[in-house]
Amino acid sequence: MRVTIFTEHNGSFETEEARIAYPEGMNECLKNFISTENEVKMIVHTKEDDGTALTEDILKETDVLVWWGHLCHGSVVDSVVELVASYVNRGMGLVALHSSHKSKIFMRLLGTPADLSWNEINERERLWAVNPRHPIASGIGAQYINIPHDEMYGEPFSIPDPDELVFIGWFESGYVMRSGCVFNRAYGKVFFFQPGHETNAVYNIPEIQRVILNAIEYVAPRAPISEPLKSVNVPALEKVDS
Amino acid sequence: MRVTIFTEHNGSFETEEARIAYPEGMNECLKNFISTENEVKMIVHTKEDDGTALTEDILKETDVLVWWGHLCHGSVVDSVVELVASYVNRGMGLVALHSSHKSKIFMRLLGTPADLSWNEINERERLWAVNPRHPIASGIGAQYINIPHDEMYGEPFSIPDPDELVFIGWFESGYVMRSGCVFNRAYGKVFFFQPGHETNAVYNIPEIQRVILNAIEYVAPRAPISEPLKSVNVPALEKVDS
Amino acid sequence: MRVTIFTEHNGSFETEEARIAYPEGMNECLKNFISTENEVKMIVHTKEDDGTALTEDILKETDVLVWWGHLCHGSVVDSVVELVASYVNRGMGLVALHSSHKSKIFMRLLGTPADLSWNEINERERLWAVNPRHPIASGIGAQYINIPHDEMYGEPFSIPDPDELVFIGWFESGYVMRSGCVFNRAYGKVFFFQPGHETNAVYNIPEIQRVILNAIEYVAPRAPISEPLKSVNVPALEKVDS
Amino acid sequence: MRVTIFTEHNGSFETEEARIAYPEGMNECLKNFISTENEVKMIVHTKEDDGTALTEDILKETDVLVWWGHLCHGSVVDSVVELVASYVNRGMGLVALHSSHKSKIFMRLLGTPADLSWNEINERERLWAVNPRHPIASGIGAQYINIPHDEMYGEPFSIPDPDELVFIGWFESGYVMRSGCVFNRAYGKVFFFQPGHETNAVYNIPEIQRVILNAIEYVAPRAPISEPLKSVNVPALEKVDS
Repeated sequence: MRVTIFTEHNGSFETEEARIAYPEGMNECLKNFISTENEVKMIVHTKEDDGTALTEDILKETDVLVWWGHLCHGSVVDSVVELVASYVNRGMGLVALHSSHKSKIFMRLLGTPADLSWNEINERERLWAVNPRHPIASGIGAQYINIPHDEMYGEPFSIPDPDELVFIGWFESGYVMRSGCVFNRAYGKVFFFQPGHETNAVYNIPEIQRVILNAIEYVAPRAPISEPLKSVNVPALEKVDS
Repeated sequence: MRVTIFTEHNGSFETEEARIAYPEGMNECLKNFISTENEVKMIVHTKEDDGTALTEDILKETDVLVWWGHLCHGSVVDSVVELVASYVNRGMGLVALHSSHKSKIFMRLLGTPADLSWNEINERERLWAVNPRHPIASGIGAQYINIPHDEMYGEPFSIPDPDELVFIGWFESGYVMRSGCVFNRAYGKVFFFQPGHETNAVYNIPEIQRVILNAIEYVAPRAPISEPLKSVNVPALEKVDS
Repeated sequence: MRVTIFTEHNGSFETEEARIAYPEGMNECLKNFISTENEVKMIVHTKEDDGTALTEDILKETDVLVWWGHLCHGSVVDSVVELVASYVNRGMGLVALHSSHKSKIFMRLLGTPADLSWNEINERERLWAVNPRHPIASGIGAQYINIPHDEMYGEPFSIPDPDELVFIGWFESGYVMRSGCVFNRAYGKVFFFQPGHETNAVYNIPEIQRVILNAIEYVAPRAPISEPLKSVNVPALEKVDS
Repeated sequence: MRVTIFTEHNGSFETEEARIAYPEGMNECLKNFISTENEVKMIVHTKEDDGTALTEDILKETDVLVWWGHLCHGSVVDSVVELVASYVNRGMGLVALHSSHKSKIFMRLLGTPADLSWNEINERERLWAVNPRHPIASGIGAQYINIPHDEMYGEPFSIPDPDELVFIGWFESGYVMRSGCVFNRAYGKVFFFQPGHETNAVYNIPEIQRVILNAIEYVAPRAPISEPLKSVNVPALEKVDS
């Protein structure tokens, strides 16, 4: 699978905790484990650029786009958002990680603000597979994944009803979250996965890596990306008498 | 229910057929039958204006927005689209009629291009209630509605899977369509209804009027429109030890 | 609304804890608060009877059936199960409470075994409204309901994907649960609500009562119960040339 | 994939038309094309047997069960129905063809009577792919499949809302049908496919064969069939203070 990772640099090095969590950068961690099963390109987005490094030429060669964004959501220009949305609707897969719930592209594809409750106290999360046989939950060896420290994201989460709910998160501080959700959009699939705060080494956990690798496979297109969709004037297929 | 109709003037008077279909204008037809059960405001949008006649003050007093657009989709400015999207996500109902499938607001809320096949040969449509007991299909006195002449809209229709599929359209020319669909979006509901070409007097059919009146009631908010949604930092509700 | 409660006697008086939780019996508690907004009939089912006290004459006069069962699931005969299933499919509402997840009627309507994980240590549950504007969650005055002591029911819960997910339960012991689920079945609606262990006074909590009253209203039929469904040989509506 | 076909003999040879449609028997036609991509066992069920030829030993060696039944629905004993339902819930796939909508196993898994309208005048059906990129619709080379002669099955079809709607059928006589539907049941998937009347040679059409082969692959289990599901008493995963 050809995977493009669109992520942020600053998520990894801004704080002491982040440097401890991912000494080489969270982006490098993502790239390393995703590369074990896929051909990977990575774009590191900052507040100084406008996101146009994610070109149509790259999207043409992408089966699945993995998006991790947070502080630089606002600097991605709308033309990039529209381009990505078009490719997803034409069949490209999208995996939106953690704080990408407020990325322009995620809200654009969902149609809702995707707001939630949050709390950053490094608490424990237990991620339950609602259906342990779902392909995205396979191979984790248990009905849940234990995450020792993570940012809490909690309900209500203002999204459309997911087409498939794969995981529900339990948080020590008393909250729950629809933490793994599949959304079908025209010919494409989007998977949102809540874990992944930049100051907790969540993406080092083997079961979390397994889920993301599963999700990449699950949302990948089953057929070549289609031409841009458009409404077409078609001939009658049957005789019309009325 | 307080209903605001956002519609176009030109849909009704541009052609001879349109003048015959709706001598007083399609907009007046909509206003008349919707007024029988609701308090109605109407905004007639043209290519010459930018849609900003639909103000926040009006939305604040609106339970359900009924949208019919076609030739002037492009002249509605994005700020109006975002404002309406925000109100729908906060609980306002939206009924999107016919060619509104390509309105900016409908595509904005769905996240997909909502493209389809079409054909304009004044053919017969038979509109089947998939679930005749759905509140939107109630009171039509049969399992289907006969529409003597309508524009054909056919599958594939590039939408997310509807949360509720209420009607499927059968067309004489050999096509089918998911013609009545409910989409949940955060706190709000959207109903798309395919019938309604401006040169066919579809909105004069009593059963079609019944469906639109039912839909207005179905998508109306059950509680006052909420404050704008936002992500909130919340306190722990349980002691955190980890 | 005409509500019939089908419940068990033994749930309430078998143990000391149950007598403390509901001195007059859990069934009386259910009857009392449901009666405040509905016309109520109650059938108390025991292991000694076969459930046939729930006759077709009663179902004919029932808008919504509220079911609480546990120890006597097995003694309800299949003919009663089939009769109730038929009425739900024809439009009658069903509210299945707590341990009714393993009642014959609930599994019959879902098609799945509805198994789950459980633990009985009187722990705290926090019941989160995924969509606080859903009619079933309205009027609870907060985004969650605090239940001081309840039996834990946890995922994975082997049900079909609910048509609407209204509540997710958070449990102190580390589990989560799809605790409030709507299932559409032909012309009828089923609501499953997890809280309600017989030795915890859960049904005395005003917000829990509010949810059950809301659910009764939500699943109630919008039109009279239909005749029994059957496949029908119908005439061609259009000329067939092939 | 290991496929077991459970079908009827009489569907193929009772009438002159059936002999013309499938000179060697419809069952042989199913077996032949399904065998091109799968390892196939076939059980031919008659009114004289009770269906117990479909043993647990066979189910243990089955990834996907393909069911075609009609005149002998009633003679399948309940123990076989329960056994098959258990295997589907544990992960085995089920493809229910045509008149199998009224088989005990299909109604058992859906929870609804699955009734519909029908008409047998050898009319033309056009089967539209609602989402031409769905894996079940792939490889058919067009947006629809033309079926020169078929029995009409029409809405309303009393089923739960499908988890995925893949095909809608258009019928010359004026009817529509949700003709290709996926239902998730616990760990298993069910696909219903409407085409296939025994006196029309529908299963000889290459695109129809492609869909059935696709469906077999789509509903096949992604992991070994699980042990029978059961509710389990589980330990607390967190300290409980309340």
